[in-house]
Amino acid sequence: MQECELLKRLRPLFPGNGGDIVAGIGDDAAIVKFGNRLLLAAVDQLIGGIHYLQLATPAAVAGAKLLKRNLSDIAAMGGKPDWALLTIAANAVTEEWIFEFHRGVAECAEEWGVGVIGGDTGSLPAPGMVATLTILGEVEPDKIALRKNAHPGEKVFVTGELGRSFPTEHHLNFTPRLREADFLAGRYTGCMMDISDGLALDAVRLAEASGVQIALDLQSLPPRDGATIAEMMNDGEDYELLFTVPADKAERLKEEWPFEIKLSEIGEIRPASGELLVDIAGKRLGGEYNGYQHTAAL
Amino acid sequence: MQECELLKRLRPLFPGNGGDIVAGIGDDAAIVKFGNRLLLAAVDQLIGGIHYLQLATPAAVAGAKLLKRNLSDIAAMGGKPDWALLTIAANAVTEEWIFEFHRGVAECAEEWGVGVIGGDTGSLPAPGMVATLTILGEVEPDKIALRKNAHPGEKVFVTGELGRSFPTEHHLNFTPRLREADFLAGRYTGCMMDISDGLALDAVRLAEASGVQIALDLQSLPPRDGATIAEMMNDGEDYELLFTVPADKAERLKEEWPFEIKLSEIGEIRPASGELLVDIAGKRLGGEYNGYQHTAAL
Repeated sequence: MQECELLKRLRPLFPGNGGDIVAGIGDDAAIVKFGNRLLLAAVDQLIGGIHYLQLATPAAVAGAKLLKRNLSDIAAMGGKPDWALLTIAANAVTEEWIFEFHRGVAECAEEWGVGVIGGDTGSLPAPGMVATLTILGEVEPDKIALRKNAHPGEKVFVTGELGRSFPTEHHLNFTPRLREADFLAGRYTGCMMDISDGLALDAVRLAEASGVQIALDLQSLPPRDGATIAEMMNDGEDYELLFTVPADKAERLKEEWPFEIKLSEIGEIRPASGELLVDIAGKRLGGEYNGYQHTAAL
Repeated sequence: MQECELLKRLRPLFPGNGGDIVAGIGDDAAIVKFGNRLLLAAVDQLIGGIHYLQLATPAAVAGAKLLKRNLSDIAAMGGKPDWALLTIAANAVTEEWIFEFHRGVAECAEEWGVGVIGGDTGSLPAPGMVATLTILGEVEPDKIALRKNAHPGEKVFVTGELGRSFPTEHHLNFTPRLREADFLAGRYTGCMMDISDGLALDAVRLAEASGVQIALDLQSLPPRDGATIAEMMNDGEDYELLFTVPADKAERLKEEWPFEIKLSEIGEIRPASGELLVDIAGKRLGGEYNGYQHTAAL
């Protein structure tokens, strides 16, 4: 399945923004008007053998990972999580594994104040495991952070470190950046996304959504575990925040940053030109930097 | 996987009602307070080879079925649907099949005024197809219909016909009973569910949730396509409404019923005793009437 081509065919099937849809398919989560509030909603899958090594990953860790990936999406919108719904379809997976998987979700949900309000369990006709989690949350109108809100002249920032997520097991042990996003949204940024498919690919998505060019200073990227530039650009599952800040707020942000995790200024937003992603000298970053793709959000 | 036993272990992992949760896991959909409104949320799976015959069912019909099953859950709560989020994980399924599946969801969504606001596509490591749909909706406070709200003395009703859903293809072509539920909820009933796993099993669930006994008049069950009593009790996927009505409103309901589909009074609610499900003479209905189980909602 060539997912990018398929998605280009699927997206026109579904209506875009308008009416009660503030942000529809294409951002980290949808935003819809519900009564007097703004509801966030997103869904994600965890597929045995694709998103984790089925034999090596403890079931509770896999369950917590699924929830944390969704929490990362809520963070990227500038929001707070409220509720979750869970499904699992499995075959040749023990009842104990399924119980532990749910226990992992439940403990992580309690830690982050999420109520699990629905679920469904089913059997697959062939060996395997597919779980999904739908996250629901809320965002204040003045904290909405969308991929399309980057403007030329803004500085590009990233939280934490990049690359080598799999060998370091960061892809299992990461902390969703909800606190950091809550600090940033509205006050410093109106354009944020989480980096899950590698900086190169996700930066291109942000540039495309905003109709701008992103120039990255490759020497300023924050390496995890001695990651190379190629690893920082291409490895998936960083679950860090990529966001833009107006130039006149960038210095103040660095001074005021109250968290232990790193904050790195890694580039700037430039007006649209032929290329979406360039280095700081304006040279196209393509070819060797294609990011990591495992599933494709609509 | 013995689903009933597994569910008994899983449910205590997740908090019950309380706080903003008006109705949590265990009803057709959850109800949570969100701002000044009541949000409905439910999730359901469609698994190739389990819920439909993978080769025989057109993809668009399978997609529409997945949405309609969720609409049936919203109806059963007395609510209205608003939004949906969709996932699909597939292997050895053509891109055309996946496109048609999404087209089926999209057309059905438009028909029922549902906005598809999120999705995710992924690959399975082995041949197969698992799709999920999360439905979000709203219910007015005075229209909430819960499984736990049946009271002794109330009459038991069902919409439409029962049994032989598979040979008649009703399980694909059914119409979710949203209009009928909207008419019934609040005005005639505060206790409703949809019949998806066979009347026998779903009636037991209602009796269990309400702490009552259900007495069914087997001769009054409405057969689909000449279904036997056993078929009406056990066949799954009727997607009709099972609900209770105070005795003094039952006659008026029959007179005022404005829809073409059948309305049948099929029994009454009695005080709890040893048996959850009996015939009108008080004889236990068990053994041969065990319903149909394909997946298990948490």
